[in-house]
Amino acid sequence: MTDFAATKAMFHLPEGVIYLDGNSLGPLPRAATAHVGQAMEAEWGQRLITGWNKAGWMALPTQLGDRIGALIGAEPGHVVVGDTLSIKVYQALASALQLNPDRRVVLTDNGNFPSDIYMAEGLLQMLDKGYELKVVAPEAVAGHIDDTVAVLMLTEVDYRTGRWHDMKALTALAHDAGALAVWDLAHTAGAVPVDLSGAGADFAVGCTYKYLNGGPGAPAFIYVAPRHAGRAVPALSGWLGHEAPFAFDLDYRPGAGIERMRVGTPPVLQIRALETAMDIWDMADINDVRARSVELCDLFIAEVEAACPDLTLNTPRDAARRGSQVSFRHSEGYAVMQALIARGVIGDFRAPDNLRFGFTPLYIDEADVHGAVRILADILTNRLWDRPEYKVRAAVT
Amino acid sequence: MTDFAATKAMFHLPEGVIYLDGNSLGPLPRAATAHVGQAMEAEWGQRLITGWNKAGWMALPTQLGDRIGALIGAEPGHVVVGDTLSIKVYQALASALQLNPDRRVVLTDNGNFPSDIYMAEGLLQMLDKGYELKVVAPEAVAGHIDDTVAVLMLTEVDYRTGRWHDMKALTALAHDAGALAVWDLAHTAGAVPVDLSGAGADFAVGCTYKYLNGGPGAPAFIYVAPRHAGRAVPALSGWLGHEAPFAFDLDYRPGAGIERMRVGTPPVLQIRALETAMDIWDMADINDVRARSVELCDLFIAEVEAACPDLTLNTPRDAARRGSQVSFRHSEGYAVMQALIARGVIGDFRAPDNLRFGFTPLYIDEADVHGAVRILADILTNRLWDRPEYKVRAAVT
Repeated sequence: MTDFAATKAMFHLPEGVIYLDGNSLGPLPRAATAHVGQAMEAEWGQRLITGWNKAGWMALPTQLGDRIGALIGAEPGHVVVGDTLSIKVYQALASALQLNPDRRVVLTDNGNFPSDIYMAEGLLQMLDKGYELKVVAPEAVAGHIDDTVAVLMLTEVDYRTGRWHDMKALTALAHDAGALAVWDLAHTAGAVPVDLSGAGADFAVGCTYKYLNGGPGAPAFIYVAPRHAGRAVPALSGWLGHEAPFAFDLDYRPGAGIERMRVGTPPVLQIRALETAMDIWDMADINDVRARSVELCDLFIAEVEAACPDLTLNTPRDAARRGSQVSFRHSEGYAVMQALIARGVIGDFRAPDNLRFGFTPLYIDEADVHGAVRILADILTNRLWDRPEYKVRAAVT
Repeated sequence: MTDFAATKAMFHLPEGVIYLDGNSLGPLPRAATAHVGQAMEAEWGQRLITGWNKAGWMALPTQLGDRIGALIGAEPGHVVVGDTLSIKVYQALASALQLNPDRRVVLTDNGNFPSDIYMAEGLLQMLDKGYELKVVAPEAVAGHIDDTVAVLMLTEVDYRTGRWHDMKALTALAHDAGALAVWDLAHTAGAVPVDLSGAGADFAVGCTYKYLNGGPGAPAFIYVAPRHAGRAVPALSGWLGHEAPFAFDLDYRPGAGIERMRVGTPPVLQIRALETAMDIWDMADINDVRARSVELCDLFIAEVEAACPDLTLNTPRDAARRGSQVSFRHSEGYAVMQALIARGVIGDFRAPDNLRFGFTPLYIDEADVHGAVRILADILTNRLWDRPEYKVRAAVT
């Protein structure tokens, strides 16, 4: 059984803050600063260029890939870390399209994260081969999987509502129709159990700064199913994905399996920070995390609905259909969130009217839920959000 | 006049090491660890998600872009930092091709860094429109610029030999022929004066871990000429390049100018390290750096040629035709470099037979040159490289 008091003690959590936004950026692992500092002083500082071999930097992307892979049901040796999530979405989609060259539809839903859709738009427009990006409602996805679909590209959990797609069922439908499935795990890796292998996913991508707690700008990851890994075209064919990067040949030859999905120089400092986050995951069982997450989300929904009649739940009530976040709608949602943040309860606002709260059992417990609801109820009951300064939109919301 | 003793004092340089590989990975700025630590503790740790606004993270890519832009003759507001160099090569080339849609040749040379060529191969293969990647000898480039060329894509200074292309002349030839020019500044930014604006470059890209000293995995940068910035298609169209990223619209609308070349979440920790490197550049004048670099390279060539008859210069003798590195050929170059590293003289080996030495006046001086040549001569004269352990190739060479 995971000791959640022990995992909570591994994070720096500021005084007076209840942090319900770990689904956007996880908190600082206490060990991270010293570990990154050590990498800077003892590795970069002392070893200089030889750090690539002697400090093992070159192997970090696959090492970390395997540690993340263990959390998402990936076969060992089939996940690699690097770049950003948008880049990995592009790479996965481009690769999947090349594996299914005779079809012209990419199917996604309007609950997919916009960047995934933008990257697909950019790719399909550039390919200029009559591709169609079909964007349907989440509940309409299954009905649109047919023999025109080349690739089904979905984010498993909706960033706004927490609605959770059934990866296994939709992947099976895609395969039955002759399509490939690309899954974005941004809101599932570290949030809920994921079984890529069992679900038969073809490609998957995700980020490490949300539930995995890798820090601002932490790298993304990509998974390629073993059956594709040896023939997938990486599309972004960089030197570190080459079979022999340091031969400096002029012709690209893809590396073995997942190695080919590497592109350029890995972000060593970010990866060292991510390592300390993964050390905390070594203390946890994702099934325990899920069970606690369901308890915390259920508790939050019940308490908010009892205390805040102005809010409307915008997340599936059935835990089996949602990830690890809860959203409520409010017409002045932006101002309400600013008022909450001013009181130390940090969640997210997501346009047009969502107050979004992430529940992350590694460091959030019942006392946090009670405290957050008490402050939320006070703000709503006493209209404390109704101040001009809470209505000025910041650049990043 | 730049005070090079003062700039040298800003770096951590290990005892007993003469570091002639700053053209591959610059050394640690002394201020970097504390600055990154501060970003981790006070920004990530204390501000959590609000760091994107309150710690100014979101603006870092353009802020750093402008600081780098000042070193390479870019107009303010036309450089942005992010991703890796390979990714930015892809983005620049894809964008340039879309600006010149009726031609089918991408011209480059075999002294271009292989990853640039690989990225182009991957892109052109995916576009599947009959593109040809024409790879010629560096000295043959000018003769191959004709009205079939869509994009001339070159690295300004050859990573093996230090041969320096004439950016202004070749860009003018390209423009006269109706082609666009994409320049990779990997071995010029921070090494020699670059005048992107004066040369009329259309796109430029570069990395920050070499002469700029940003650290292992530091982000890349991209420049788009003002005349293209408002119509360039970013190809990798991620949410942070969107006109309004936090509106979460489903349709991509490119941001203003260089902003559209942003893709995903910037690597905040790497950028904080890079800031301390750019602080040192604030103490230097690139023209002073160039003058010193020429002196140091000339001195090194003269001393090596006097003391090491086994070595053959593989760099233009004329300073005006080379960057800030010197290469010598030796049939056992790999083993010689291992022997040098074992004695504390760190350079690079580049296949098939190049010993490569970078000269970086911010922290390398005449005493370093004398010391390095003394050890090199000893190793060659006494065949100290002729040991089995020096001939075992490491993963990264």
